[in-house]
Amino acid sequence: MNSGPATPGIPSSRTPTRFDRRLSKILDHATAVFYEKGYEGASMRDLSRVTGLSLAGLYYYFESKEELLCMIQKHYFTVVVERLQGRLKDVSDPEARVRTFVLNHFEYFLAENYKATKVLSKEDDVLAGDLGAEVTALKRQYYRSCSALVETLKKEKGLEFNTRVAVLSLFGMMNWIYTWYKPHVDPGAEGLARQVGDIFLSGIKSSVKRP
Amino acid sequence: MNSGPATPGIPSSRTPTRFDRRLSKILDHATAVFYEKGYEGASMRDLSRVTGLSLAGLYYYFESKEELLCMIQKHYFTVVVERLQGRLKDVSDPEARVRTFVLNHFEYFLAENYKATKVLSKEDDVLAGDLGAEVTALKRQYYRSCSALVETLKKEKGLEFNTRVAVLSLFGMMNWIYTWYKPHVDPGAEGLARQVGDIFLSGIKSSVKRP
Repeated sequence: MNSGPATPGIPSSRTPTRFDRRLSKILDHATAVFYEKGYEGASMRDLSRVTGLSLAGLYYYFESKEELLCMIQKHYFTVVVERLQGRLKDVSDPEARVRTFVLNHFEYFLAENYKATKVLSKEDDVLAGDLGAEVTALKRQYYRSCSALVETLKKEKGLEFNTRVAVLSLFGMMNWIYTWYKPHVDPGAEGLARQVGDIFLSGIKSSVKRP
Repeated sequence: MNSGPATPGIPSSRTPTRFDRRLSKILDHATAVFYEKGYEGASMRDLSRVTGLSLAGLYYYFESKEELLCMIQKHYFTVVVERLQGRLKDVSDPEARVRTFVLNHFEYFLAENYKATKVLSKEDDVLAGDLGAEVTALKRQYYRSCSALVETLKKEKGLEFNTRVAVLSLFGMMNWIYTWYKPHVDPGAEGLARQVGDIFLSGIKSSVKRP
C-alpha cells in the first residue's frame, strides 16, 4: 500500500503520528493477506503473523477482521477522492475532467495499489451494519464525483443518455480489470486510461442530441 | 435457473433423462444458496437442506462443493454459447453481430439468470486444478467468440485499437452489473444492451483509422 497523502481514518491535514504510521503499515500487510487468501480465507492468526503483532496486539488496533477490512476500504477511498480533488483544481474542460477521473483511478488503483484493488472489488459486499454504512457512504461520494463530471459534460454538449447506466458502465470497465490485467501484456495506467476514456467519451458523445 | 435448451454437462442434442432433470434442479437450488451465502459461506449441509437430498445423496451427485460449483459454471457458459451461436446464424452485419453478443449476454445472464450471474462473477477464481481448467476453457471460448466478432468489425472498418483491452472493457461493463443492478430502477436487458452496445460501438468506431 502506498499510503499517499492521508493516513487511514485520520484527516489528512493532521501530521501523521507514530501510531498513524504503524496503523498504515498494518493495513499494508493485511491488504496483502486478503489479496492472497481472500477475506473469508484469511484468519486473525494469519494477519497476526504477517503484521508481526501478537494476536492480542492485533486486537488492540482492531476489534475484528471486519473492522480491519473497513479501515482498509476507508483508507483507499479517502485517498483516491483527495487526489482527484487535487487534480481537478487545474482542469476546467468538462471532457478533460472526465479523463482526469479515469486517469486518477487507474494510476491510484492499478499502478500503485493493485492488490488493494482486487480486495476492494472482490470484498465489495462483506461488511454489514455501521461499518458497511461508512464504507458505502465513501464509495457513494466517489461515484457521485464521477457522476457530477459526466452530468456537466452531458449538459454542455446537449446529450441524452441514462447517466446512472453510463457511469456504472465506466466503473465496470475500470473495476473489472482486477480479473484480467497482466502487467507484462497490457498497457500501463496511462494507456488504459486513454483507451477506456476514448471508448467511454466517444460512446456517450454519440448519443442522440436533444432537438 | 432457467435451464434452457441444454442440461448441465450433457450435449444438448441428447434428450434429457430423468437424471438430467434432477441434476438441473439441484444446480438451481445450489445456485440460489451460493447467491445468498457466498461460496465460502455455504456448506454441503446447507446445500443438502435446500436440495432436499440427504448429505449422502448429495455426495452421490457431487464429490465436493468444488465439483458442484464447477457444474454450475459449466452449465451457464455452455448454454450461453449455444444460444449465441443459434442467434448469430441469422445476422451477417459485423456491427449487428457484436450487438447480438451483448443482447444475448444480458438476456441470458441478467433477465433469466440473475443469481447465477452474481455467483459466476464473484466466484470467478475459486476453482483450481482440473475443475478450474475446464471452466477456464469454456470461459475462454466465450471470450474468444466475442473477440472474433470485434476483430471482424475492426478489419471491416479499418480501425486501430487494442482488441484485448476493448473486449475486456466490454465484459467489464456487462459483468460489473451484478454489483449495482436494481430491477425497479434500471432498464431491462434490452435497454441495457442498447446503451452498453452504443457506448462500446461508438467508442471503438471513433478510434484512429489506418492511413
